[in-house]
Amino acid sequence: MGEGSRFLCARARRADALGTRYRGGMSTPSQALSALGLVLPPAPKPVASYVPSARSGNLVWVSGQLPFRDGSLATTGPVPSVCSIESAQQAARQCALNALAVAADAAGGLDRIERVLRVGVFVQSDAGFTEQPKVANGASDLLQQIFGEAGRHARAAVGSIALPLGASVEVELLVEVR
Amino acid sequence: MGEGSRFLCARARRADALGTRYRGGMSTPSQALSALGLVLPPAPKPVASYVPSARSGNLVWVSGQLPFRDGSLATTGPVPSVCSIESAQQAARQCALNALAVAADAAGGLDRIERVLRVGVFVQSDAGFTEQPKVANGASDLLQQIFGEAGRHARAAVGSIALPLGASVEVELLVEVR
Amino acid sequence: MGEGSRFLCARARRADALGTRYRGGMSTPSQALSALGLVLPPAPKPVASYVPSARSGNLVWVSGQLPFRDGSLATTGPVPSVCSIESAQQAARQCALNALAVAADAAGGLDRIERVLRVGVFVQSDAGFTEQPKVANGASDLLQQIFGEAGRHARAAVGSIALPLGASVEVELLVEVR
Repeated sequence: MGEGSRFLCARARRADALGTRYRGGMSTPSQALSALGLVLPPAPKPVASYVPSARSGNLVWVSGQLPFRDGSLATTGPVPSVCSIESAQQAARQCALNALAVAADAAGGLDRIERVLRVGVFVQSDAGFTEQPKVANGASDLLQQIFGEAGRHARAAVGSIALPLGASVEVELLVEVR
Repeated sequence: MGEGSRFLCARARRADALGTRYRGGMSTPSQALSALGLVLPPAPKPVASYVPSARSGNLVWVSGQLPFRDGSLATTGPVPSVCSIESAQQAARQCALNALAVAADAAGGLDRIERVLRVGVFVQSDAGFTEQPKVANGASDLLQQIFGEAGRHARAAVGSIALPLGASVEVELLVEVR
Repeated sequence: MGEGSRFLCARARRADALGTRYRGGMSTPSQALSALGLVLPPAPKPVASYVPSARSGNLVWVSGQLPFRDGSLATTGPVPSVCSIESAQQAARQCALNALAVAADAAGGLDRIERVLRVGVFVQSDAGFTEQPKVANGASDLLQQIFGEAGRHARAAVGSIALPLGASVEVELLVEVR
């Protein structure tokens, strides 16, 4: 767990700093988003015959999101032979942002998302690639930066031989809403 | 998103036609199934030490279903080198039908399924295959044809290097029941 | 379904023996764990920026667990070329044990887990490997041995080209708690 542990430590320090600020009541998720210089994109359209999200009670399942940005895919191809780990991290972050746009749309606004419960991350991987967690942190870190403690989630990150439209990353989300 | 968009449009037209009919109260899910010339198969037995579904409150999780039809697998092998996209679509549809049989069994009948929440589709894929959404539509379209608006679901469709018994597609389902 | 059916029969006999014992009220999950000669490990730390579990109401989602044992990975590499089916089964069992440790931590003790709802099993697979269900039974059997009828769950078992840290198996869990 050498790499994982070291990575975790650096992340934990950053997360603590952000978490403390958030838990201190200094910002709502919307304000945290703005502080990061981000805006929610228009909720992405599904690329096939399903819907962006489905709700039961206060749970909202968000469809697997691809790293679309301004209408085109940020990165395609397997990691790391075609897409670098750093690019894949950015793609995971973009997927998470797109998923939040969908969740916010379903919840009636970003600030009506109570907490993030589960994140599923599929990373298009070469055989032998082992750093799916590092890639998935692109999504996880963003969620924690925006929601603080309420953004910390259960996660499954795995490798996939191929993903829709050739995307390097796909991220699905389960959130609890007010 | 060229391919995706064009595909979406054709699907949307068909879905609207079906959705309108359903929303107009002209049919129950059972009637819609019959109108499609389909009957629910006997709920498939799991191929290992787990059960076909588990329920908590009004949520029912259905185990990943393979495209069994009359006791044998419809299609095996990766898409598209061994199994064509069209065959894989049919396989996804068969998986969804089998999953509905399980869900109906758990719910006390097809018409006691309130709505479909999430569909997970795993497509055995060659490296570089990018049309998992088109394959997964075989499942999604059937659900929408049977349940109308209530059949529209969140979805994650990804590629897998290998699937149980060599199946080309595996589909899992989460539904809300009355 | 030849292989699957035969396998299922042997499993069913074992499961019945255990299930009967458990259903007869002879043991709690903690007692069943002890009877198997097992102790829950310390809840494993996540290898990246997320948390081991997240709870909403009485549902607890447990993050994908790797087969860590005493701080190192039991098995790495694809099945069956590098990791045998038997080793992968043991790894799946270890993943499930680690996941139970997390769930017990979230629930306030193993005996406060009401039932297991869903198990997701990702098996690092060579192309053409078809026995993911047999591998996943390493996890499923343990859950049934510990919880009896309440341990029988919906399941999705699929192949992955690559998994975090090179692990041969990753298992995620959804449980209902009191």
